[in-house]
Amino acid sequence: MVMAKARAVDGPDKPFRAAEIKRRDLDLHDVLIEIKYAGICHSDIHTAHGEWGQVNYPLVPGHEIAGIVTDVGAKVTKYKIGDRVGVGCMVDSCGECENCLKGEEQYCLKGNIQTYAGVDKYGEPTQGGYSTHIVVQENFVLKIPDNIELDEAAPLLCAGITTYSPLNHWKAGPGEKVAVVGMGGLGHMAVQIAHAMGAEVTVLSQTLKKKEDGLQLGADHYYATSNPETFEKLNGSFDLIINTVSAKINLDAYLRLLTLDGTLVNVGAPAEPLALNVFNLIGHRRSFAGSMIGGIRETQEMLDFCAEHKIVPKIEVISAEQIDEAYKRVLASDVKYRFVIDTSTM
Amino acid sequence: MVMAKARAVDGPDKPFRAAEIKRRDLDLHDVLIEIKYAGICHSDIHTAHGEWGQVNYPLVPGHEIAGIVTDVGAKVTKYKIGDRVGVGCMVDSCGECENCLKGEEQYCLKGNIQTYAGVDKYGEPTQGGYSTHIVVQENFVLKIPDNIELDEAAPLLCAGITTYSPLNHWKAGPGEKVAVVGMGGLGHMAVQIAHAMGAEVTVLSQTLKKKEDGLQLGADHYYATSNPETFEKLNGSFDLIINTVSAKINLDAYLRLLTLDGTLVNVGAPAEPLALNVFNLIGHRRSFAGSMIGGIRETQEMLDFCAEHKIVPKIEVISAEQIDEAYKRVLASDVKYRFVIDTSTM
Repeated sequence: MVMAKARAVDGPDKPFRAAEIKRRDLDLHDVLIEIKYAGICHSDIHTAHGEWGQVNYPLVPGHEIAGIVTDVGAKVTKYKIGDRVGVGCMVDSCGECENCLKGEEQYCLKGNIQTYAGVDKYGEPTQGGYSTHIVVQENFVLKIPDNIELDEAAPLLCAGITTYSPLNHWKAGPGEKVAVVGMGGLGHMAVQIAHAMGAEVTVLSQTLKKKEDGLQLGADHYYATSNPETFEKLNGSFDLIINTVSAKINLDAYLRLLTLDGTLVNVGAPAEPLALNVFNLIGHRRSFAGSMIGGIRETQEMLDFCAEHKIVPKIEVISAEQIDEAYKRVLASDVKYRFVIDTSTM
Repeated sequence: MVMAKARAVDGPDKPFRAAEIKRRDLDLHDVLIEIKYAGICHSDIHTAHGEWGQVNYPLVPGHEIAGIVTDVGAKVTKYKIGDRVGVGCMVDSCGECENCLKGEEQYCLKGNIQTYAGVDKYGEPTQGGYSTHIVVQENFVLKIPDNIELDEAAPLLCAGITTYSPLNHWKAGPGEKVAVVGMGGLGHMAVQIAHAMGAEVTVLSQTLKKKEDGLQLGADHYYATSNPETFEKLNGSFDLIINTVSAKINLDAYLRLLTLDGTLVNVGAPAEPLALNVFNLIGHRRSFAGSMIGGIRETQEMLDFCAEHKIVPKIEVISAEQIDEAYKRVLASDVKYRFVIDTSTM
């Protein structure tokens, strides 16, 4: 058993505090990882604040994890001590249902085991990456390519795969017009990935504040959604829209931006239902879809793709003491574009 | 110019009356059709009652038209006098936009010209099939296969193509589990077509009243949606759901019936917006989509497919005097499964 230093939160409106948590003894296929960096994802905030259902506090969030293997279980074959590795949003799944067998463990029919705020197969609550160590089954550990720094790798494990997977599934590529709604942690990854896939990329952001960054990251066009003319001008323009904004949007306005057979994909979800006028789907055989992270095989593919195309997130490395402040800044959209905790400060 | 006998309605709550309407002189590519039968579609009722926007009365509805060619324009090459032909929901489109060029005229970017309640390229209001004659541009006329009777052919031109097109587009076939919501005019066609395509077909109808018919038409399973256990039992079951019901449904309950990557397709639309919980999409990468009739090439393909597989609607032939009564019966779901007007009674 390893005692890990961590940062935990005790309730929806409580600040983070230093904590010690137990990481289990290595089972046959487990890998012990010394975490070097952990990204701060908006999901961490929703969960910490209890906005996505009941949480058993204390909670250690974090599912954008990058570190080094420091020990392996007796039957581990995929990793050895010293390997540079990552862990994303899930740490296990049933492995037997049709979705797991397809390599889509994120859609495990019994429910994947989330990296934090879940319950593992030993009946213990899972605790995430705001911590110095974690123990994970080798099949849910990813290899981080040598040319990606560990601090920059961390956000790929959630923000990277969450945007790569729908772009890959709905075949963003040459000749395809892709719009990315929201220029935050997820959006700034989606822009780079869609551009590298060969698509023509448009950012739809509330304002033009981050336009320069968007264009530098590979966007071909950049529009402010606060300007109603944007929606008139871009009517019927896009084959694929990736909506990275979890807040409630005017769904009909975005659906009308799709061309024949176009798809609007939400990668986040507002807590309240969204309404739409079905005529906006029927009139051009449009689809409204959702996508959740990606499978393990696809996550490795994403990491290798990012290494090949030299795609990394723009990050701001912070210390463990700055987590509460970072949460406030994320909620105020005051981050370019991902906070990453240096776990040596735990 | 031909004066046609017709049945027209003068306002949202007015009864049908006998009328005479002018059909234009044949332009170079026009075909004059002596209409033999016209189906009654739910859209006719929505439009006649003014529920789908403002209507210029008097209105002659009808977009499920079967008849015989009695004259052709000077440059017509596709049809000759005596041919058995059909006309569906549209009589023209721009022919130049990217959707028209793809053969998806129903999604014409300038708007297709609807068979009734539209305005044709001469600036005249279009009037539909509750009439003895109609003049239509040859590219929007369909050939009715010899082994389909004209009265049974009529409903194929809307109910047939409206269900065939999404089943075809989303690849219903062997190994696919398809559910059809609603066992009415559209639903009873969807069941037959999906079955002929090789899919495993389930009907989801309010009650089990039409179960025997459903199974006889090719359904493998039949469930009542009034029974809440249906939704528990079928959770995560279907690759494709074709919703033929235009009334407001509990979208979330139906989305949860879809498997990974499953699609719920609406072929009708309620006037009011529909709300959904986006988590039901994200959790299994599901899609909510819409589809509207089909292109001309696909409509001909559907007619030939129905001829080959001996698929016809179940119909009740009525006289022109019975239209008002038939409307009431459609609204009460008291029709098995399509009313077809014998236009010799005009």
